[in-house]
Amino acid sequence: MSIEFQFDAQAGTARAGRLLTPHGEVETPVFMPVGTAATVKSVPQDVLEELGVQILLGNTYHLYLRPGVETVRTLGGLHRFMAWPRAILTDSGGFQVFSLNELRKVTEEGVTFRSHLDGSSHFFTPESAMAAQIGLGADIIMAFDECTEYPADRSRTQASMEMTLRWAERSKKYFEEHKREVPWNQYPVPSTQRQEKGAVAGNWVLGTGCSTQSLFGIVQGGMDLALRKESAERTVGIGFPGYAIGGLSVGEPRERTREVVEATLQYLPSDKPRYLMGVGTPEEIVEYASLGIDMMDCVLPTRAARHGLLFTSEGKISIKQARYTEEEGPLDPNCGCRVCRRYSRAYLRHLYASNEVLAQVLNTLHNLSFYLDTMRRVRHSIRLGEESRFLSGLWSQPKP
Amino acid sequence: MSIEFQFDAQAGTARAGRLLTPHGEVETPVFMPVGTAATVKSVPQDVLEELGVQILLGNTYHLYLRPGVETVRTLGGLHRFMAWPRAILTDSGGFQVFSLNELRKVTEEGVTFRSHLDGSSHFFTPESAMAAQIGLGADIIMAFDECTEYPADRSRTQASMEMTLRWAERSKKYFEEHKREVPWNQYPVPSTQRQEKGAVAGNWVLGTGCSTQSLFGIVQGGMDLALRKESAERTVGIGFPGYAIGGLSVGEPRERTREVVEATLQYLPSDKPRYLMGVGTPEEIVEYASLGIDMMDCVLPTRAARHGLLFTSEGKISIKQARYTEEEGPLDPNCGCRVCRRYSRAYLRHLYASNEVLAQVLNTLHNLSFYLDTMRRVRHSIRLGEESRFLSGLWSQPKP
Repeated sequence: MSIEFQFDAQAGTARAGRLLTPHGEVETPVFMPVGTAATVKSVPQDVLEELGVQILLGNTYHLYLRPGVETVRTLGGLHRFMAWPRAILTDSGGFQVFSLNELRKVTEEGVTFRSHLDGSSHFFTPESAMAAQIGLGADIIMAFDECTEYPADRSRTQASMEMTLRWAERSKKYFEEHKREVPWNQYPVPSTQRQEKGAVAGNWVLGTGCSTQSLFGIVQGGMDLALRKESAERTVGIGFPGYAIGGLSVGEPRERTREVVEATLQYLPSDKPRYLMGVGTPEEIVEYASLGIDMMDCVLPTRAARHGLLFTSEGKISIKQARYTEEEGPLDPNCGCRVCRRYSRAYLRHLYASNEVLAQVLNTLHNLSFYLDTMRRVRHSIRLGEESRFLSGLWSQPKP
Repeated sequence: MSIEFQFDAQAGTARAGRLLTPHGEVETPVFMPVGTAATVKSVPQDVLEELGVQILLGNTYHLYLRPGVETVRTLGGLHRFMAWPRAILTDSGGFQVFSLNELRKVTEEGVTFRSHLDGSSHFFTPESAMAAQIGLGADIIMAFDECTEYPADRSRTQASMEMTLRWAERSKKYFEEHKREVPWNQYPVPSTQRQEKGAVAGNWVLGTGCSTQSLFGIVQGGMDLALRKESAERTVGIGFPGYAIGGLSVGEPRERTREVVEATLQYLPSDKPRYLMGVGTPEEIVEYASLGIDMMDCVLPTRAARHGLLFTSEGKISIKQARYTEEEGPLDPNCGCRVCRRYSRAYLRHLYASNEVLAQVLNTLHNLSFYLDTMRRVRHSIRLGEESRFLSGLWSQPKP
């Protein structure tokens, strides 16, 4: 058992299905909240469960630096470390290192970078990135890639894409040789996973050693549609149980993103999960799901929440504005989340204006709830065959 | 209906009972978490309810500055503003202003002080402090007092005490003339309060105008036992439905605090609630409850949590220490709170070391849970008549 993907409904290019992982089922299309340092900032894990989160994203770069892969491995892997029994995906660290700009140096062998925490020097290769991700033990891990900068000319984009392909081969080779070392096979896994059998240890069941992680490939190729096609075909040629579209949301116009996504998707096998990395706004995640994307992740709902930017069925709200000082109504009258059920806009505005931590807690909870509800409605619409309607109906434009 | 106090069990000097307020019942002895700016920092109100919090403390000084009394009054008072249907007590602002040190000036009329937020100048009198607390609309409000500094000589202590007594008279006079202006009487109050009858408005019931706040007097007198006796007797002479012991925890040795508390308690009527302001550690709250104190409040559990200091049945833990990096066990094996049920010390240590907001959320939740459990056990012990045992048994000293 690693993963299994089934879709059972289609509406146009969109599809709804489920991804079976060693840590439970994930309904797709899915939006994955980002839990950078083994926490979705400010939200306890039981609240994530209540929100219906079925899969989280962890950042290998951050976890590698702190608390360190060996610590997480020693404690049984990321699921056990952060007390999260459901599915996890880790990125490869490539994009995070890419974001460091002046702190990194890329060669064929790998990437030298300096820690943003203490300036210490580190070296990631496809092999070490796989080793780190195996040690962390997410259900889905990502090949080590180079995220091509934007803008980049054709020859630069092609050279970068070629290196990502060579790194994909190296990632796969290392993974295949070491995938049995995942910490679940040495340590207990949650008893909620019915596919595992073994002796009960507290709430956890000892692994039988028969489940492994899944390694996804990443398509690059910048904004060049021919290179995207080539990257997709050659990545599929290497062979992975799922494919991601990387190198987008790096500064290009949104229309360009959509164009590249559409162009790339047609070269990805429809029977494998398709993951668009690092998107997007609520409108965008609906749009990409309608194109046939199965998985997405983005820091937007959680990061925007920390800045008081809240997504509602009536458009975006900046809760810091003085106009909300005495507004008794809920943040979003159409939202059933804990925050909208209990608190007024006036109270949320007060918390934000007073720099209270509860502002971040409640704002994050609402934004995540909004994103998850949006995807729930997307899946429902696909099952109803409403492809043409859900795009226009699910997300109202902000009122003027 | 304002408040009603009944105690139904005694063990030595300790007593267990209940305080009936316009916003529900409070089991005593009670520890009141501090919700300075209409939030117990980082903890959502539903979690406070789950923890069994029956009464919260709000700080008039902070709420007066932000969001302002008029905003809170306009929104129906503090209960409605912060979506907290249970009881609330506000302090008078006197102690907060006292803490400002160089930013304040005291005269017979009142206190001039500068805001810690923007340096603006403000003036509190007994009358304006009552007006503010009536506007905020807590169930229990406090007379405006001067917290005598420590150390202070006898004549200074006496003069300060005399002024507090004059201010107590002025507080009571203003309160009696204005107590019908509490916002519950103009605005809906929670439907969970069975003592209120009226038309249902959402989850709230329109007030019938028959319930009011209760004003407690505050005993001062510094560390001088004779002055404490005089202050207690003359405050009781003025007449309040409850009495607080103020002016302690201002730097004096702990033995002195206990001595003053014991000396003061004997001059306070046993049929009225007795509130010791601003204490204490878990050992101390058990000790003061055993002396016959009914109510306590302190920022310690919440503030210590933010600094990674956690109270457990095995003593205090500083979770930032590297020794916890790979500790798989729960924070407190004898605690049944959400944090101890789910997370390891290693994970809590990681969150703290990574400056994650979830560290504050979980640490605060545990410490509050520990305090509330401690008081629950105190009440249970009193009911069992175990006065002599609970002091020694409820709180184990930290292991060496």
